[in-house]
Amino acid sequence: MTDQLVISIDAMGGDNAPDIVVEGVEVYLKAHPEASAIRYLLHGDEAKLAPLLDKYSRVKAQAEVRHTDTAIDMNAKPSQAVRRGKGSSMWNTVAAVKSGEAIVGISAGNTGALMAMSKLQLRTKDGVQRPAIAAIWPQPKSMCVVLDVGANVECDASQLVEFAVLGEAYFRALYNKEHPSIGLLNVGTEELKGNSVIKAAHERLTESELGLNYIGYVEGNDISFGDVDVVVTDGFTGNIALKTAEGTAKLIGHFFQESLNSTLWSKFASFLNYLGFMRLKKRMDPRRANGGVFLGLNGLMIKSHGGTDGLGFANALSIAIDLAKSHFLEEIEEELTALHVEDDNIGFIP
Amino acid sequence: MTDQLVISIDAMGGDNAPDIVVEGVEVYLKAHPEASAIRYLLHGDEAKLAPLLDKYSRVKAQAEVRHTDTAIDMNAKPSQAVRRGKGSSMWNTVAAVKSGEAIVGISAGNTGALMAMSKLQLRTKDGVQRPAIAAIWPQPKSMCVVLDVGANVECDASQLVEFAVLGEAYFRALYNKEHPSIGLLNVGTEELKGNSVIKAAHERLTESELGLNYIGYVEGNDISFGDVDVVVTDGFTGNIALKTAEGTAKLIGHFFQESLNSTLWSKFASFLNYLGFMRLKKRMDPRRANGGVFLGLNGLMIKSHGGTDGLGFANALSIAIDLAKSHFLEEIEEELTALHVEDDNIGFIP
Repeated sequence: MTDQLVISIDAMGGDNAPDIVVEGVEVYLKAHPEASAIRYLLHGDEAKLAPLLDKYSRVKAQAEVRHTDTAIDMNAKPSQAVRRGKGSSMWNTVAAVKSGEAIVGISAGNTGALMAMSKLQLRTKDGVQRPAIAAIWPQPKSMCVVLDVGANVECDASQLVEFAVLGEAYFRALYNKEHPSIGLLNVGTEELKGNSVIKAAHERLTESELGLNYIGYVEGNDISFGDVDVVVTDGFTGNIALKTAEGTAKLIGHFFQESLNSTLWSKFASFLNYLGFMRLKKRMDPRRANGGVFLGLNGLMIKSHGGTDGLGFANALSIAIDLAKSHFLEEIEEELTALHVEDDNIGFIP
Repeated sequence: MTDQLVISIDAMGGDNAPDIVVEGVEVYLKAHPEASAIRYLLHGDEAKLAPLLDKYSRVKAQAEVRHTDTAIDMNAKPSQAVRRGKGSSMWNTVAAVKSGEAIVGISAGNTGALMAMSKLQLRTKDGVQRPAIAAIWPQPKSMCVVLDVGANVECDASQLVEFAVLGEAYFRALYNKEHPSIGLLNVGTEELKGNSVIKAAHERLTESELGLNYIGYVEGNDISFGDVDVVVTDGFTGNIALKTAEGTAKLIGHFFQESLNSTLWSKFASFLNYLGFMRLKKRMDPRRANGGVFLGLNGLMIKSHGGTDGLGFANALSIAIDLAKSHFLEEIEEELTALHVEDDNIGFIP
């Protein structure tokens, strides 16, 4: 890229905005000295941002505040947010991507509102029926991309196939793996396998000659512990899988604390084992996997977790910048075109 | 109960049968001296069971071997198992429940085959469209019942409502809680909430005046960490949630081991902390929650995990015996009748 990268940031989105947002940019800049060549647009309330910029000198040196005094409430309904939210920090974050001033936008605000504003302003890419939200999940030796995790409650087979193409390009952009493997989330029991939508998507992906590394059906446990890079599912199932995994991790953490704190002996041993625990904590840190991406729009939008802190926001920003540096948008354009040409050739009707 | 309880056991079902089955009964009898008044029918190969009974004296004193030399393969297709499996240990396990000789049956064998044989022999209860499989899940202070976890890939609203009634009675039978809370599994985003099936079930449960403690929608994280006793969902979503949780627990265990073993210092501290770890391990032990129950049949069938060991099988047996001692079957009969009378009164058409 010869042009300077510009990142559009919703400084007012998230439970603890704008503090965690500005802190997050600082954390990122500190860890990535090379990122000082990037320009950051901070959309938000100047009066609230000024003292934070005084505190975080790296951000102050790189960022430009774009003042607005309206922000979208975390609990606002998406339809209301879109109707009344023009000129808000979230709206302006997307608008800077739409106008081409920024290459990627990022917000820790209300997910539904951000998706609605992104769809309205950026529009869905040609060849994509509806955008999806992709999440990143830890695995023993790598990460796994799961999509959709909440944008589409019901999906038909052709949407699932599009998600496979989008997810594959996304994984490649983030992890530089040429042919990431793709699995379709299903249940295991032989005779109960899938519904008609999943079966149709499976057949379409199996027949395709587009060079996708489709490995067939995978099960829920494969998301965390399987040999698969991209897991494709509808937004209902994906959202429930994601939240179930979060709940399980939280439960184990709770039992873990309880077990370790239950005797003085345990407390002493835990203290000795501090380093080991810190390593574990780091690996299981949900902030490491923070950053859902909206795939299938004419532009890049990243959604950070609403309750995240500075470190989590920095990780989402890191994903945003990796994507911005990649050829993701051009790649999916080519691949979606090829997919739909193949659809026509084989007469695929979902 | 004045009659003697009789338990029908598939001694040949499971990856490590018959060893883990006989061992499991021994473990249970050792922990429950009062259970020596119960009679156990062991269906399986006499030649293989004899040396095990010599090893486990408690089982030998209580059990009666019912010889058969056929067993259902763990990978057999359910339809084939039903066609060719008459007289197998699994078939005979169900048959003893059907004939009334035993009050409950238990098998660690092939789930699909066991469901197919159970449906064929026991038949679905009047007022139930299709049986469900209920799983038990740990929570910080209690357990949670989740159903369906795999018997019905697609469900309509009236099935989900039936699951609520079945799950509630099951929870009450196991944990003696008069009004367990019931939640309907859904996604969180306000405007994306549910599909039409879930919405219809939600309305039906909200309107009901049967005294169900229905608390509305719950999300994936509530299964492990929410204030809900019974989580209702279709078999596709439930199966994926269950397996995702298993995968997550396995991943955390893996990271945990890695973190602790990475330095000598950690190893030393881990050794000191042995007791704390044992407590944690015990709480997270998947064997504690071993035992899926087939709900909605004219008879009680328990499915133990195929890969379980003696302790896990003992836990599944414990669930079987708790259920056998309860009034579960009579209760659901009354409640399902009341439900369908209400259906007619309000003109509920799913």
